Amino acid sequence: MASSTPEQNRSPEVRRDPLNNQWVIFSPARAKRPYDFKSKSPQNASSNSGSSCPFCIGNEHECAPEIFRVPTDPKSDWKLRVIENLYPALSRAVEKDDDPRCETSCLGYSDRIVRGIGFHDVVIETPVHSVQLSDLDPREVGDVLLAHKKRIEQIKEYEFIKYVQVFKNHGASAGASMSHSHSQILALPVIPPTVSTRLCSTKEYFDQTGKCILCEVQPKDLLIDEAKHFVSIVPFAATFPFEIWIIPRDHSSHFHELDSEKAIDLGGLLKLMLRKLAAQLNNPPFNFMIQTSPLQVTDSQQLLYTHWFLQIVPQLSGVGGFEMGTGCYINLVFPEDAAKVLREVNIS
Amino acid sequence: MASSTPEQNRSPEVRRDPLNNQWVIFSPARAKRPYDFKSKSPQNASSNSGSSCPFCIGNEHECAPEIFRVPTDPKSDWKLRVIENLYPALSRAVEKDDDPRCETSCLGYSDRIVRGIGFHDVVIETPVHSVQLSDLDPREVGDVLLAHKKRIEQIKEYEFIKYVQVFKNHGASAGASMSHSHSQILALPVIPPTVSTRLCSTKEYFDQTGKCILCEVQPKDLLIDEAKHFVSIVPFAATFPFEIWIIPRDHSSHFHELDSEKAIDLGGLLKLMLRKLAAQLNNPPFNFMIQTSPLQVTDSQQLLYTHWFLQIVPQLSGVGGFEMGTGCYINLVFPEDAAKVLREVNIS
Ligand SMILES: Nc1ncnc2c1ncn2[C@@H]1O[C@H](COP(=O)(O)OP(=O)(O)O[C@H]2O[C@H](CO)[C@@H](O)[C@H](O)[C@H]2O)[C@@H](O)[C@H]1O
Ligand SMILES: Nc1ncnc2c1ncn2[C@@H]1O[C@H](COP(=O)(O)OP(=O)(O)O[C@H]2O[C@H](CO)[C@@H](O)[C@H](O)[C@H]2O)[C@@H](O)[C@H]1O
Repeated sequence: MASSTPEQNRSPEVRRDPLNNQWVIFSPARAKRPYDFKSKSPQNASSNSGSSCPFCIGNEHECAPEIFRVPTDPKSDWKLRVIENLYPALSRAVEKDDDPRCETSCLGYSDRIVRGIGFHDVVIETPVHSVQLSDLDPREVGDVLLAHKKRIEQIKEYEFIKYVQVFKNHGASAGASMSHSHSQILALPVIPPTVSTRLCSTKEYFDQTGKCILCEVQPKDLLIDEAKHFVSIVPFAATFPFEIWIIPRDHSSHFHELDSEKAIDLGGLLKLMLRKLAAQLNNPPFNFMIQTSPLQVTDSQQLLYTHWFLQIVPQLSGVGGFEMGTGCYINLVFPEDAAKVLREVNIS
Repeated sequence: MASSTPEQNRSPEVRRDPLNNQWVIFSPARAKRPYDFKSKSPQNASSNSGSSCPFCIGNEHECAPEIFRVPTDPKSDWKLRVIENLYPALSRAVEKDDDPRCETSCLGYSDRIVRGIGFHDVVIETPVHSVQLSDLDPREVGDVLLAHKKRIEQIKEYEFIKYVQVFKNHGASAGASMSHSHSQILALPVIPPTVSTRLCSTKEYFDQTGKCILCEVQPKDLLIDEAKHFVSIVPFAATFPFEIWIIPRDHSSHFHELDSEKAIDLGGLLKLMLRKLAAQLNNPPFNFMIQTSPLQVTDSQQLLYTHWFLQIVPQLSGVGGFEMGTGCYINLVFPEDAAKVLREVNIS
């Protein structure tokens, strides 16, 4: 049996994440269990070189159509491009007043089917295959975030779009099928479950206290770093080891309220967090997700209690039947321990 | 671009699973997207041979304590054993009237912390390292299920246990750390989110219709096979490709109502489903989860609208940031297509 650290001897605890209304089991001692399969879970597969990559500069013709580029001049070299996903999860919406509801033809289940229309775009974050998001400088990371914002503002014109999910997959075990640095934007005709749950729990907190639950977060032991407009923390009931949330200090419901100054500030903090994860966890695969609010504001108070944030999750181990069955997660690292490590990691 | 089947040309559809209140995007065309990493996602790692495996017959001394065995005679050779998990996610409960609530010492977050006590057991399904669950005959698979039942009935005596999750991880990419065939039983001091959601949605359906939603399932195009007491289907809004639910025909709230005759019947159908998945999908890693009801019945009508089932999920591809962010899933295979394939697959 491997020798254990003091943290690993701590008794298990079950914590509730009040935002996602979810229970997480913290159980550091489980980190010691043996692994009986020959190779430990997959190394991040190495990726093809850029020569045949459609996302590389010079290969634009291999991509689905461009939506816009930065800088916007179509003749100049681009620093980033927003393009249509060639294999979209949803059919592209055509009319601003498209109606995704299903006619009676839907196998008699019309209350349970919505037509699969929306938008699914890719943001190519750099023209160069070997450059990662965390290699960009804060202003350039900010430009990627502003591209997400601009695209959301375009999509917002389509009234039937209920929610826009911005996310990034980095590395094969984080789900990426393309290795060239990119993120994705998926605009949905429904409000997804995590968002409905968050709406309910933040509303409940607001009804009880008159306050926004994320404005009230007391980082205390959970703080990693701070920037002018943002703080980064490990959430109190983090679902995954070393999960990070970057939260705007000032109350803001929608990510697309981000302005240029805040984008650079956020770009710097995001870069710092990615570099810290890479240094501490040996360049792990990761995902990030922008957790924002539904586009349409149905309840006038909604703007008072919804607060967007950016969630970063390094992919360190898979999950099993317990998590699939229950929706509860087992996290082997207490958030206060992860925060301390990330606060102190040296990334000179 | 690979050539596409007629199914792959079908337009995307978004379906709601009324039981889990979850949206799933069906998007077969996405199956054609390229994969840019050198090796396709991990092969199932090969496992160690049995010589050093603590779950093998003869190595009982390397295991955490036994709870019971089948046959029960401690001197006879065993066919299956239920043992304590040596690296439990929760501390073992000691007293029947233990109270997992947190005292004020809990960092001031007492409403968000529960002590991590409960039970975490392992069911070793066979004494032989190379034997898989689907190699056992229906009666032996039934014995495994009856062992789960017996253990739940023991755990039920502990009043603070709210829910018992029975699950199986098969194969490294399904999360398994041990290759010897086994399943797990995790008894929780809280009701997990999937179960609360199911309680709400089945209650709502019952309030509206006076009926149990799972008794009302019309398998139609979604049927795979039938046994005397159970049917197997692909659910209408399956979260994962080739996901299977085995549902008792007669209304039954709790898995632990299973009797010996039904256990053999279920054993046979479970075996058949596992063999069909193995034949069709090249022996994929998989999980199964027994989806039952909370141990304590708080609302007298609860027994009328809750209906247990067994969920089987082959692990064919990972997920990415979209699923983590939204809780929505993208499934590349329409359930009616998966059901047809599984109905017809030959497992002679
Ligand atoms: N020439 C081209 N022009 C335009 N677009 C192109 C293109 N070639 C490829 N693409 C698109 O580029 C995207 C690259 O995305 P990622 O690498 O982040 O993962 P992907 O979406 O494949 O799946 C991961 O993320 C999704 C969503 O989280 C999960 O469903 C899935 O399981 C996981 O593997 C793909 O969506 C692909 O369709
Ligand atoms: N000598 C011994 N005596 C008794 N017990 C022993 C033992 N040696 C090992 N064990 C236990 O045997 C169990 C084997 O379980 P699995 O192979 O199904 O996956 P595991 O629980 O490790 O994790 C998977 O399932 C869990 C729950 O879904 C996920 O959290 C996780 O990410 C995933 O890898 C382990 O829980 C281990 O603690």
